[in-house]
Parts: sequence; C-alpha cells; structure tokens
Amino acid sequence: MLTVKAYAATSAAEPLAPITIERRELDPHDVLIEIKYAGICHSDIHHARGDWGPQAYPVVPGHEIAGYVTAVGSDVTKHGVGDRVGAGCMVNSCRECVNCRKSEEQFCLQGMTGTYGAVDRDGALTQGGYSTHVVVNEDFVLRIPEGIGLDEAAPLLCAGITTYSPLRRFGAGPGKKVAVVGLGGLGHMAVKHAHAMGAEVTVLSQSLKKREDALRLGADHYYATSDLATFEQLAGAFDLIVNTVSARLDMDAYLSLLVANGTMANVGAPAEPMSLNVFSPLMGGKIVAGSLIGGIRETQEMLNFCAEHGYGSEIEVIPAERINEAWQRVLASDVRYRFVIDTATLA
Amino acid sequence: MLTVKAYAATSAAEPLAPITIERRELDPHDVLIEIKYAGICHSDIHHARGDWGPQAYPVVPGHEIAGYVTAVGSDVTKHGVGDRVGAGCMVNSCRECVNCRKSEEQFCLQGMTGTYGAVDRDGALTQGGYSTHVVVNEDFVLRIPEGIGLDEAAPLLCAGITTYSPLRRFGAGPGKKVAVVGLGGLGHMAVKHAHAMGAEVTVLSQSLKKREDALRLGADHYYATSDLATFEQLAGAFDLIVNTVSARLDMDAYLSLLVANGTMANVGAPAEPMSLNVFSPLMGGKIVAGSLIGGIRETQEMLNFCAEHGYGSEIEVIPAERINEAWQRVLASDVRYRFVIDTATLA
Repeated sequence: MLTVKAYAATSAAEPLAPITIERRELDPHDVLIEIKYAGICHSDIHHARGDWGPQAYPVVPGHEIAGYVTAVGSDVTKHGVGDRVGAGCMVNSCRECVNCRKSEEQFCLQGMTGTYGAVDRDGALTQGGYSTHVVVNEDFVLRIPEGIGLDEAAPLLCAGITTYSPLRRFGAGPGKKVAVVGLGGLGHMAVKHAHAMGAEVTVLSQSLKKREDALRLGADHYYATSDLATFEQLAGAFDLIVNTVSARLDMDAYLSLLVANGTMANVGAPAEPMSLNVFSPLMGGKIVAGSLIGGIRETQEMLNFCAEHGYGSEIEVIPAERINEAWQRVLASDVRYRFVIDTATLA
Repeated sequence: MLTVKAYAATSAAEPLAPITIERRELDPHDVLIEIKYAGICHSDIHHARGDWGPQAYPVVPGHEIAGYVTAVGSDVTKHGVGDRVGAGCMVNSCRECVNCRKSEEQFCLQGMTGTYGAVDRDGALTQGGYSTHVVVNEDFVLRIPEGIGLDEAAPLLCAGITTYSPLRRFGAGPGKKVAVVGLGGLGHMAVKHAHAMGAEVTVLSQSLKKREDALRLGADHYYATSDLATFEQLAGAFDLIVNTVSARLDMDAYLSLLVANGTMANVGAPAEPMSLNVFSPLMGGKIVAGSLIGGIRETQEMLNFCAEHGYGSEIEVIPAERINEAWQRVLASDVRYRFVIDTATLA
C-alpha cells in the first residue's frame, strides 16, 4: 500500500480538509500516476454533498486528473514511466458488455467504476484526484500529448470530453451552426471544440457579461438569453444546440431555435425533470439528446484533437488550501473557467 | 369550377353530413384526381372538432387520398390521365426555403399547406379527401405503384409515411431491435415497415388483445405494457422505439428500454406536455426525437418500398354514410386498423 496525501469531504456538510489515504499496490495492469493537477468540476460538489445519493465518507473528489506515470505493473504495455497521462470520470468497467466492447465504457451495462465514491471491481472504494497519486488500470489511463500543459489538460478529462462527444456525434463542423448554452466550465470547452471543428459558434448566455471572453475563445456570435428578442431573432437558426446549463430551461423555447431535424444535446443535469411540449420536437423533426462524458477511445481522440489545434482549458490554478473557497466560487458561477488544484501544495 | 360531392363537418359539434363543394379549375401544373378511397385519420377528428385550433366550417377532412388522374393542366409532366395516384397531408409549400429544397416540405419555413382546413397559396381554403375529386399541384401528387390496391394504399399517405420516416432516419434494418408502442393505425404500419426493413420487431401494447394480429403483421414479439414486469424484462432491449401513442406516456420508463445511444421517436401528439427526467436520456446518451409525416420524395420512396414488399394498410372499407359511426369507433380505438371511405358511395 502507498499512503498519499489528499483533500477530502468528511461529511456532506463539513469543509474539505487534508487527509491521508491508501492507494493499492500495483496489479500487473496498473499504472501509478503522480498527479500534478486536478480540476474542480461542479459535480464534485454534488457528489461530496450527497446531492446525488448517499456517500461513504471520507470522499476524495476529483475526476480531472493530469500527471506523470511513476511506476507500472508487470504487464502494462500502454504506458511507461515518465509519460504524461491523465484519468477522467471512470477508472474501470466490465470490459465485456456490448457498450464496453464499443469503447462506450461510460455506459457499461454492469456500471462503470467512477473515479471516486464508487466500489471498484476489487471491492475497494475509489478515491479521486484531489490527491498526490492515484493507481489506475492502464486501459483507463489517457495519454496527454505534448503541446498541452498538464494544468490546462486536466479539465479536458471531464469538461473536455463531455462537450466534445455530442459535438462530434451530431456533426459539428464546417457549414454547421452550433449554439452553446451557458459559458462555464463545460460551455467554454464547447466553444473551443466547436470553433476548432470549423463550425459557426454562437454563445447563448444569460447576460452580456462574458461576451468578450466568448469571442476570444472562438465564438462568432453572442446573445443574452435574458433578452426575449434573442429567441425571436434566432428562430430556426441552429443545426445543433449544446446545452451545458444545469438549471431547468424552457426547452420549447430552445427547440424553436433549431432548424428542421436539428438537435439539442443536453450535457447538464438539472435536479428537476424537464418538461417538453411534445409538439416542439414533432414540428421540425427535432431531437432532444442526452450525452454523458464519452468513452475512453473518444477521450483520447479529443485529447489528440486539442493538441493538434493547440488548446486546453481556460484555468485558474489554486493551491489546495483554497479548495473550499473555490467550491464556493463554483457555486456562485464565479470562475473563468475551471479551477485546477496544484497538487504540489497538498503538503 | 367543378362542383363535387363531399362529406363535411359543419361545426365542431355536429355530425358530418353530405355537402357539395367547388374544386378550382386546373392551373397549368394542376392534376385532377378522381378520389376512389379516403382514409380516416384520428387527426381528422381533432381538426374538425377544433381540438387543435379554430376552423372555418364547413371542413371536409381527409388527407389519405387514393384515386386516378382524370385531367391534367397544360404544363403537367409528372402525371398523366389514368395514372394511379395519391395525395397526403400537404398539397403545397413555398418550394423555395431550405427545407422545401431538401424535399422536407412538411417543414416549409412559410408553412406547408395542409390538404384541408388551410389557406392555399391562392388564398382559397383547402378541402380534403372525403370527396369525389380534388385538384392538387402535380408536385404534391404521389404515384401509387401497381401491386398495392388503391383502398389499402390510401392510409399510406399519412399513417404509412409518418411511421416510415423515423424508422428510416434512425436506422431500422437487419440486426436492429425496434419496438412499436401502440398498435393502431400508425402502429400497425410501423410494424409492417420495420418488419419489411428486416428489423426484429416488438409490439408494446396496453393489453394482450392484439397479440395475434401483431404477429400476423410481422411482429416477432409482443408484450403488454400494463404488466410492469415488461419494463424489467425489456430493460435496455431496443435500438429504436417508435411511439405511436397520443396519450401521455411515462417517458423515463420507456427510455429505460433503450440501449445506449438508442432513440425514442414520437409520432403521436398528446395534448399535454411530456415530462422527462433529464437523467434518463443522459444516462445512456439517449435520444428523444419528434417526427412529422415525411417529405414528398420520401413519401414516394415509401410507396415504392411498400409495393416492392407487397403490402399496404390493413383496412375496413366503409360507405360514406358510416363516417360518423367510424369516427366514434376511432375514438373508442375500435378499428383494425384503418377505416377507408369508398367514395363511390358519396352519391
């Protein structure tokens, strides 16, 4: 066992605090990652606070992990010591079901193993990336290409793939008009990806506050959704809408912004059910789609794509002692656009 | 002007009654169709009864029209006298917008012209197929191939294309598992199409009453949705669900029957909004799609496909004087599977 430093939620209510945890000895197919940076995802807060179900505390959050390989198990072939690598939202799956065989491990029929707060195949509870080291099966370790800093790469492992996958699936590219709803951790990655894919990108955000940022990130247009004229002006304007907002939206209003046969892909997860007038998708043959991160193969493809196009996430690097403050700011939407923990500060 | 016999709703409440109406003189691109058969669609009732908005009475319903060409305008090239033809839910559109240019006239940005109860491009009110003759622009006249009776062809113009289009769009075919929810006018066509396309077809119907019919129509399996065990047993079983039911369904329960990345296509139109837990599509990358009839090109493709595979609709032919009784039976779901009016009885 390897005893390592981490930051953990010890209950649903308490602030996060330093802790030590144990990492397992390397199995033949395991990789030991020395974590350099770990992104803070809004869902870390939901999980640790028990919003999505009971948790076994302590919970070490973090599923946007970037670092170096420092040891490998005896049978590891995919990674070597010194490699720049990452891990995302999952660290295992059954490998055998129809979805795993298609590298859609996030939809493993036996349930994928979450990077933290999950019971792994060996019965142990997983602990996440707010930590100095993690042991991950080689099949769930991603290569981070040269050309992206490890700090700006970390958020790609969740925010990056979550937005890349629906953009690819629903054909974002040259000649396509893509709207991104919400300009936060997910939204800003959606803008960067869609722009790099060659689409014409419009940001739909509540206010005009982030307009300059959006244009700098690659958006071609920007509209405030608090202005009702926006919905009239943009009726039927988009081939694809990627909705990154977790709050409940007026789905019918957003569907009216799609061309015939257009798609609205939701990657945010509001707590309440959404309500939909069934005529809204009917009139125009429209699609409402859900999307959940992406498989391992597609995550690697996304990392390679980002490196080719020379971008990572927009980040604010913080030391570990500011994690609680950062969580408050995430809850207040006061982050441009992702907090990344420098794990060297987990002293 | 041509004065022709018809059956009309004279108010939202009165029974339908015989009437005479005028059909316009043939424009250069018009086709005069002598109607032989007209299908009764549930939406005829909704329209005539004002359920979907105010109507200008009298309303002659009917958008499942089959008959012969008896005259053509001077510039008609697509059809000739004596041809077996049909007309469906639309008789005109702008021809110029992006959707019309893709032969998705049902999504015409200026609004397609409905076969009845709509204001045509010339300002006249359209009147439908419960009638002996209709004048339709040649571009909206379909060829009914030899090998399908005109009586069993009539319902293909609405029920047929409404179910064919989402099956094609979402890839029904060999190796695909397709569920059809509801076995009525639409559902029975969905079963026939999906079977002819080579998919493995399951009918999900409230009770077991129509089981024998479903298997005869081409279904491989049949389950009663009133039996809650059905939902456990079929979890993750289908690539595509075509929902033909107009009543409000438990969308989350039905989405649980899809494989990862599966699609639920709704062609029925319940009066109330549907409610959807946003996690349902998210977990599994699932799609909820709307579908509205189909374009003219695809409607012709569907008719050709039916002829190739040797099937039409399952019908009960009735004389005009039984239209009111038939409407009552449609409302009571007492039809297997489409009433078709023999217009020779409009004496």
